[in-house]
Amino acid sequence: MTYCVAVRNDAGLVFLSDSRTNAGVDQISTFRKMHTFEVPGERVMVLLTGGNLAISQSVASGLRVQMQNHGEKSLATAPNMFSAAKLVGEAVRKVYERDAEALKNFNVEFNVSLIFGGQIKGEEPRLFNVYSAGNFIEATDETPFFQIGESKYGKPILDRVINKELSLDEVAKCCLISMDSTIKSNLSVGLPLNLLCYERDALSISRHKQIDGKDPYFASIRDRWAEQLRKVFNDLPDPAYWP
Amino acid sequence: MTYCVAVRNDAGLVFLSDSRTNAGVDQISTFRKMHTFEVPGERVMVLLTGGNLAISQSVASGLRVQMQNHGEKSLATAPNMFSAAKLVGEAVRKVYERDAEALKNFNVEFNVSLIFGGQIKGEEPRLFNVYSAGNFIEATDETPFFQIGESKYGKPILDRVINKELSLDEVAKCCLISMDSTIKSNLSVGLPLNLLCYERDALSISRHKQIDGKDPYFASIRDRWAEQLRKVFNDLPDPAYWP
Repeated sequence: MTYCVAVRNDAGLVFLSDSRTNAGVDQISTFRKMHTFEVPGERVMVLLTGGNLAISQSVASGLRVQMQNHGEKSLATAPNMFSAAKLVGEAVRKVYERDAEALKNFNVEFNVSLIFGGQIKGEEPRLFNVYSAGNFIEATDETPFFQIGESKYGKPILDRVINKELSLDEVAKCCLISMDSTIKSNLSVGLPLNLLCYERDALSISRHKQIDGKDPYFASIRDRWAEQLRKVFNDLPDPAYWP
Repeated sequence: MTYCVAVRNDAGLVFLSDSRTNAGVDQISTFRKMHTFEVPGERVMVLLTGGNLAISQSVASGLRVQMQNHGEKSLATAPNMFSAAKLVGEAVRKVYERDAEALKNFNVEFNVSLIFGGQIKGEEPRLFNVYSAGNFIEATDETPFFQIGESKYGKPILDRVINKELSLDEVAKCCLISMDSTIKSNLSVGLPLNLLCYERDALSISRHKQIDGKDPYFASIRDRWAEQLRKVFNDLPDPAYWP
């Protein structure tokens, strides 16, 4: 499985992805699920991928090739993020046309889910969730984050903490805690992580970090969060429903 | 959907269930998902139910009728909790024989999941998870809790806190926090709750509480947990990955 989360707020965008891929429990690998597309000074886009790895890699490669070929339509030329998200949807549909029937012969569902976000000069940062059918929804102030993959374990902390006033670093911290809860409760999500913080109007990628098991900040967050959570738990009064 | 959780540790057993049942989002009802079976001074058993409501009610009714008929085989006569769990499994299979084919005609899956636990005099308290096929597994010191239904949101806090030394009240507090996280993040789980704490060797039910939205203890736990969680979050250092 996978766990990826991305948040859009007033400060900008934060993307976090794990890297575990498994086909059954005895075929576990590490693949980067974060793909970046950049024209420095003009546009930055980030794609997080979940679902069938062959499909999601095809989608990312298709978009990359389109951009490198300097074609008329690519992430480098899209006039706005909505058009860019449409291109991502079209890339998914192209893979569907090529692969879906062959996959069906082996009872493999055409399953891919994507988080796509970024900023094009002249627009606000925007964030989208693209589905297997190539359709998509956009994050709003009311729903400022998207998750794909094993999303439930890490949702409560996002629901409680994320708001539009948080700094990028605070959002990153919240995403890392959400990821830690997921990793702790689900084997199919694992390190290393890719964290990317995009400051609104920066129009280039400068804050990207690969986080592995030896990362001291992530280790300290994991330990202190667990310890403080237990402390809060202990400090809360016990129920007094019965004598 | 449903969220039920039960824990077995040195102090005894704790059971907690929600009461929301939905068929689609426009058909939401309240049904008690906790069923108790008791021969005071001799045995106490508790069944928590999830999945298709018609199936789970049939299972609970079947077990109740069997017990009221004073038949040879019932939860009142089972020599130990393992035999009792087998009776629960058989009750599931009986409903399967009666209903599964008719359900199939309407493309309804035969889906039920049960947590069953209790104590019979002379034995330790025991806890089981019974599946749709009528087979079951038992909780151990290493895996002291079972969840059914929307289990993922509320799993991280259980993973972090539950251990065999906690008092029953502490376990109940942890289950209530787990339930609160689930309710906050998932519409299909809702109040009122049923909480039952069974003290090891009590052999009777004395601590059962229905908790609704006006319950002051649950309200205070919800508020204080959320507030303290945000405080812990704020107190943790922000990442310093970039200058």
